Amino acid sequence: MKKVLVVMGSDSDLKVMEKCVDRLKSFDIPTEVRICSAHRTPAAAEQLAKNAAAEGFGVIIAAAGKAAHLGGVLAAYTTLPVIGVPMATSVMGGMDSLLSIVQMPKGIPVATVAIDGADNAAILAAQMIALSDDALAQKLAQFKADMAAEVTAKDEKVRAQFA
Amino acid sequence: MKKVLVVMGSDSDLKVMEKCVDRLKSFDIPTEVRICSAHRTPAAAEQLAKNAAAEGFGVIIAAAGKAAHLGGVLAAYTTLPVIGVPMATSVMGGMDSLLSIVQMPKGIPVATVAIDGADNAAILAAQMIALSDDALAQKLAQFKADMAAEVTAKDEKVRAQFA
Amino acid sequence: MKKVLVVMGSDSDLKVMEKCVDRLKSFDIPTEVRICSAHRTPAAAEQLAKNAAAEGFGVIIAAAGKAAHLGGVLAAYTTLPVIGVPMATSVMGGMDSLLSIVQMPKGIPVATVAIDGADNAAILAAQMIALSDDALAQKLAQFKADMAAEVTAKDEKVRAQFA
Amino acid sequence: MKKVLVVMGSDSDLKVMEKCVDRLKSFDIPTEVRICSAHRTPAAAEQLAKNAAAEGFGVIIAAAGKAAHLGGVLAAYTTLPVIGVPMATSVMGGMDSLLSIVQMPKGIPVATVAIDGADNAAILAAQMIALSDDALAQKLAQFKADMAAEVTAKDEKVRAQFA
Amino acid sequence: MKKVLVVMGSDSDLKVMEKCVDRLKSFDIPTEVRICSAHRTPAAAEQLAKNAAAEGFGVIIAAAGKAAHLGGVLAAYTTLPVIGVPMATSVMGGMDSLLSIVQMPKGIPVATVAIDGADNAAILAAQMIALSDDALAQKLAQFKADMAAEVTAKDEKVRAQFA
Amino acid sequence: MKKVLVVMGSDSDLKVMEKCVDRLKSFDIPTEVRICSAHRTPAAAEQLAKNAAAEGFGVIIAAAGKAAHLGGVLAAYTTLPVIGVPMATSVMGGMDSLLSIVQMPKGIPVATVAIDGADNAAILAAQMIALSDDALAQKLAQFKADMAAEVTAKDEKVRAQFA
Amino acid sequence: MKKVLVVMGSDSDLKVMEKCVDRLKSFDIPTEVRICSAHRTPAAAEQLAKNAAAEGFGVIIAAAGKAAHLGGVLAAYTTLPVIGVPMATSVMGGMDSLLSIVQMPKGIPVATVAIDGADNAAILAAQMIALSDDALAQKLAQFKADMAAEVTAKDEKVRAQFA
Amino acid sequence: MKKVLVVMGSDSDLKVMEKCVDRLKSFDIPTEVRICSAHRTPAAAEQLAKNAAAEGFGVIIAAAGKAAHLGGVLAAYTTLPVIGVPMATSVMGGMDSLLSIVQMPKGIPVATVAIDGADNAAILAAQMIALSDDALAQKLAQFKADMAAEVTAKDEKVRAQFA
Repeated sequence: MKKVLVVMGSDSDLKVMEKCVDRLKSFDIPTEVRICSAHRTPAAAEQLAKNAAAEGFGVIIAAAGKAAHLGGVLAAYTTLPVIGVPMATSVMGGMDSLLSIVQMPKGIPVATVAIDGADNAAILAAQMIALSDDALAQKLAQFKADMAAEVTAKDEKVRAQFA
Repeated sequence: MKKVLVVMGSDSDLKVMEKCVDRLKSFDIPTEVRICSAHRTPAAAEQLAKNAAAEGFGVIIAAAGKAAHLGGVLAAYTTLPVIGVPMATSVMGGMDSLLSIVQMPKGIPVATVAIDGADNAAILAAQMIALSDDALAQKLAQFKADMAAEVTAKDEKVRAQFA
Repeated sequence: MKKVLVVMGSDSDLKVMEKCVDRLKSFDIPTEVRICSAHRTPAAAEQLAKNAAAEGFGVIIAAAGKAAHLGGVLAAYTTLPVIGVPMATSVMGGMDSLLSIVQMPKGIPVATVAIDGADNAAILAAQMIALSDDALAQKLAQFKADMAAEVTAKDEKVRAQFA
Repeated sequence: MKKVLVVMGSDSDLKVMEKCVDRLKSFDIPTEVRICSAHRTPAAAEQLAKNAAAEGFGVIIAAAGKAAHLGGVLAAYTTLPVIGVPMATSVMGGMDSLLSIVQMPKGIPVATVAIDGADNAAILAAQMIALSDDALAQKLAQFKADMAAEVTAKDEKVRAQFA
Repeated sequence: MKKVLVVMGSDSDLKVMEKCVDRLKSFDIPTEVRICSAHRTPAAAEQLAKNAAAEGFGVIIAAAGKAAHLGGVLAAYTTLPVIGVPMATSVMGGMDSLLSIVQMPKGIPVATVAIDGADNAAILAAQMIALSDDALAQKLAQFKADMAAEVTAKDEKVRAQFA
Repeated sequence: MKKVLVVMGSDSDLKVMEKCVDRLKSFDIPTEVRICSAHRTPAAAEQLAKNAAAEGFGVIIAAAGKAAHLGGVLAAYTTLPVIGVPMATSVMGGMDSLLSIVQMPKGIPVATVAIDGADNAAILAAQMIALSDDALAQKLAQFKADMAAEVTAKDEKVRAQFA
Repeated sequence: MKKVLVVMGSDSDLKVMEKCVDRLKSFDIPTEVRICSAHRTPAAAEQLAKNAAAEGFGVIIAAAGKAAHLGGVLAAYTTLPVIGVPMATSVMGGMDSLLSIVQMPKGIPVATVAIDGADNAAILAAQMIALSDDALAQKLAQFKADMAAEVTAKDEKVRAQFA
Repeated sequence: MKKVLVVMGSDSDLKVMEKCVDRLKSFDIPTEVRICSAHRTPAAAEQLAKNAAAEGFGVIIAAAGKAAHLGGVLAAYTTLPVIGVPMATSVMGGMDSLLSIVQMPKGIPVATVAIDGADNAAILAAQMIALSDDALAQKLAQFKADMAAEVTAKDEKVRAQFA
């Protein structure tokens, strides 16, 4: 199975992004976690992205905040799909991170999820890999069913509470 | 090869989304184009999404504007990756569309591209399918090289103009 | 008297929405409370909305946050009036929720109240039902008079305090 | 049948709001159209709202732009449901109008539709009146079916165009 | 000397607005403080504004939050200058209050100060009254000189600290 | 009667601000119009503000756009009330101008009107001067009555048109 | 004298940035103009920045729009000061470009000027180079005096026009 | 070596700006720290800026919040480069400060860094001075290398943690 590369601009992003790593592991997707800065270690970013496909990665997840260039910089050096996770900031709740990631110019997309959407980044990566992995697709279907069951259970509880 | 399903909330989105269809065709990716409204034809949206995997689709691209629920509604009924394209509007240039698409709650991601990012949606879909299609991966690498060459040519022209 | 259906996207919305339920009860309006997710339990959402009129509901109140599609998804399946309550979030204080709810496309309105406006959603629902219920209309008039009296009492207190 | 009162802050709003009046007429709902300013003719606004119920109105639709106080001012003097239509402006596309209307304080709701959502205001008013008018409810169901058919027809056309 | 009327939409605004009252008193300007809601006690608002000039008031200061109509509603009933103080809220830090107050339509201005700018509202009111009161003008000049001296003292302290 | 000083940051603001000058003249208020830049001619700005009171001005109106410092810079050198008019720009429709003017720090208020609110700036200045000029107060009352009559005439026309 | 390197992400930025080049030439500052994309030609961007100091450049000006990473990417590879010019876009007038450029993380600044501030980028670059070039400092002083004279001339004209 | 002048609008900005002073000192750049308000001590601001070059300063750093005019006011009186640091506020996280600083009109640039970007302001000032100081340029190169080493160390730690 192709691996997922989870890259963060700073170790302060780790608290949010652990949910991403945990979700990937819950799907038994081999995952590597790296700290790499588009601006402080640009050469490392270049190497990570250039070598990702050859090293067996299928998807790159890049989390960054403020002027969040990491996803775009990695996408510049690979044709693997890159998922961007905008970190929440104090500027309009993370609008700086979101716009810096999602508004990529023509030719180099970054698949953007919600602000602090670490969990959804993992699910999206799993969906991509599942395109050629039926067992993973089955796990995703089960995950979806479990989520529905969880909501249904809450619904029954609340319904009874207010009946 | 898995097909791509391009869904628009309104035929008025077609002008922007034709660039998406054209790009997919330039990669020889089989593509179907549909008009489907999350709010006016919800049953059709449900059927499109539920049947997509079985009908051979690998990726769904959903374009919508304003309270742009189409991508989320389709994603609710499938585990295929769904790419959302926020249409430009007059409200802060499309911030209503963007936030309605990208801020999906935990469990159901929509891979969001730039406002009016029709072309990038196609490239992102191609990147996903290329994970299990080496010929397509090769085309994407060539596309990237062509873009670089185009920029280099412009650079030489401008450099000379101002020398 | 027609009933009001209060639907939340998540049980975490309950803390805010209890004010809505309390207000409806203060008007003696029969109320049911449900948890239902546009994205995790779309089939349940469809059934809730499709059956609402036949089950004696007159108004649906839908509370959701972020990419808040719940109101729109319910409105797609009914011609009952749907009131949307945008939940506060950390993104510009809930602008993602607000725009996702209020900016509904032509044909499918959602009557939107203020961010976290649970109480006003109940009052608005009561105003709608009161169109054919004179006793309820009377209660609303009394409620309005009570609010005025409350402000007047505060005015007198403050006026004296600073005199 | 209860009538609908359509009030505009300025005759410059008429161009947008004609769609509202036309839609109400298409449902055979008796409608009156007024120009009334919360700030320039506050006494007229007060009279309009205070007398609306007694004159047979069931719903008030208020359209205004910028610091759009009209809906709130009318709602202050009636317990009828008031629908607010924020007019588009050059400030963030009408965010001034939207926030001035939707962010009503506790106790006095204004049911807000999309920016320039004149058509949806009419549909929402019809939904309210239809709560006690089965013939109108039937018309709304037919309207919904017609919209779906229109989308389906466009879908077939586009589907064929790109097949 | 003309009096200043300080009106608040809610007694929860008092904590911020006490700075306004204190500043007015420091200039020995006679001040009355009232609670009055544009939406819950519109008749009281009307009376306050209509009678203000005759009762010896020269300036009205109106503090309100969210869909902050109070300033506009008071200005509708008087030709005295009305100063609006937008209360901070959780929506973009009070942008709802600010836009609801400052974006008044042609003909009925509200002199808007900063979000939570209670102190500046008092100073602005004093500046208006000082147009025909030389003693007050003198106090304002002294106040300005005192502020400058305070900054200069801090400058000297900081300058020394880092020298 | 005290004079009004209308200052613009650029002659490109003249097109909008002519409405301000016209309105002041309609009230027979003596008016001077100046071009003065907070950044390009700071010494002239200082002189204008420092001398304004002695030269018989009662109110200063300052129009500027983008990082609109003119009002604040003038207010720094005078205790006369300064009215700020934010010019519309392409950045969120003039939010840069508005925030640069209205968000003045404690101690130095600028009375802010709507974006491009040239007319209202004149009316506000007139209201200030009218505090000690009964004839002008009378003109303002007449102006208010004329506005109301104009709205009433439009109301009658529209009412008939749709009857 | 050190040279200035003007880099644009796309030749479509040239129309705005010609003002920058013209201004630099008016100060007789040797200038090179390049097209270089952070995402399409990242290797060229790296080379440009890495070699800039050795090739005699003192300042880099980078113009880009949307998710405008160019300035940050260049700054990652040099310790020369980098000036960022956010290009206007349809998203809130260029707020995406502005936030992507100005919100750089700790350690790698980009000196940001106004949206479309091509002219000011040139002046700022000149100010930096003038730190060690007295003749250029003299030109800047003259430029400032000329600007003031231009405003003064306009002031006299407008003053007379309205006298 | 030329000195750096660090000016703050208020001593409450000191907590953030100490990082700026510390960074300048770490580069052995002679630094003076001043409190000076564009609005409360405009004459002091004028003197600071007018005399800066003659007193041996090469760069001015100006920190201010809300309607942050300090940078622009200083830039009006000097041709030295002025760096603006927008202070975080509760209005959209400091968008008022940012727009008031960065949106300077043509002719008078202020080099703007991130909201609360005190550290980056120091680095940017050092980069400017280093244009004519090879030893400082060397320190900046070392600083950049140290930052990269710090990220690399964190990368190795995180990589091992999740391996």
